[in-house]
Amino acid sequence: METKRVPVKIEPKLALGLLGRAEFGRVAFVFNGSPTIRPLNHVVDDGRIIVFTRHTSAFAQAVMGEAGLRVAYQADEIDPHSRLGWSVLVSGTAANASDDRRAEQLGKKVQSWIDRPLDTVIAIDPLEVSGLRLTIGS
Amino acid sequence: METKRVPVKIEPKLALGLLGRAEFGRVAFVFNGSPTIRPLNHVVDDGRIIVFTRHTSAFAQAVMGEAGLRVAYQADEIDPHSRLGWSVLVSGTAANASDDRRAEQLGKKVQSWIDRPLDTVIAIDPLEVSGLRLTIGS
Repeated sequence: METKRVPVKIEPKLALGLLGRAEFGRVAFVFNGSPTIRPLNHVVDDGRIIVFTRHTSAFAQAVMGEAGLRVAYQADEIDPHSRLGWSVLVSGTAANASDDRRAEQLGKKVQSWIDRPLDTVIAIDPLEVSGLRLTIGS
Repeated sequence: METKRVPVKIEPKLALGLLGRAEFGRVAFVFNGSPTIRPLNHVVDDGRIIVFTRHTSAFAQAVMGEAGLRVAYQADEIDPHSRLGWSVLVSGTAANASDDRRAEQLGKKVQSWIDRPLDTVIAIDPLEVSGLRLTIGS
């Protein structure tokens, strides 16, 4: 009997929990007519994904330019050797939350993966959350 | 003197080289009017990114539905502790390459991160390649 890596669906609530344990993920959005991706730091707070960026970034500019901008947010933890782990995908809408006191406080806890001041807080409200865990089956 | 993580730009050719060393990345594209992200296995061959998927996947469907579909492809290797590493971003166009003999041969070398047969080969032709390396500076 051969051992195989088996994909198992993760419930949305659990998937958001895994996302909350990860330090960073990647946001996809349309900018100047083309899809693009940016790595970002995030925290999950009360069902929302709070990300931190600079006002000059493409992502901040896209969010400022369109209220309720459609985005996808993805994070994974896949062991490069066993290739076991999980991947979570969220689609939702993004809005500037820099004036949101709670979001601003969360921002103080986050360290950028680049040592640059992060002056813009963006909240992503999930419309759909899906997750996949890769485990060993037979 | 404080040590800081410093972002250093990577030249496009070198960035594609780093991408070629990575086993998988993430593609962003617009599907049913919304941006989305999928993790994928890839190889870099002669300046093109060759990815492998199934004909039933959202990505395959989006590519079949639109010739020269605009996509972004991203991969990174960031150490979760030191937060040092690199990130590469490619924007380009995607096309079905399942009939491309060279691409098909490359596909045989690639192992899916899920044990499912990958019957569709897609080639991404880069229009723009950018990369960032995070090193220790002062």
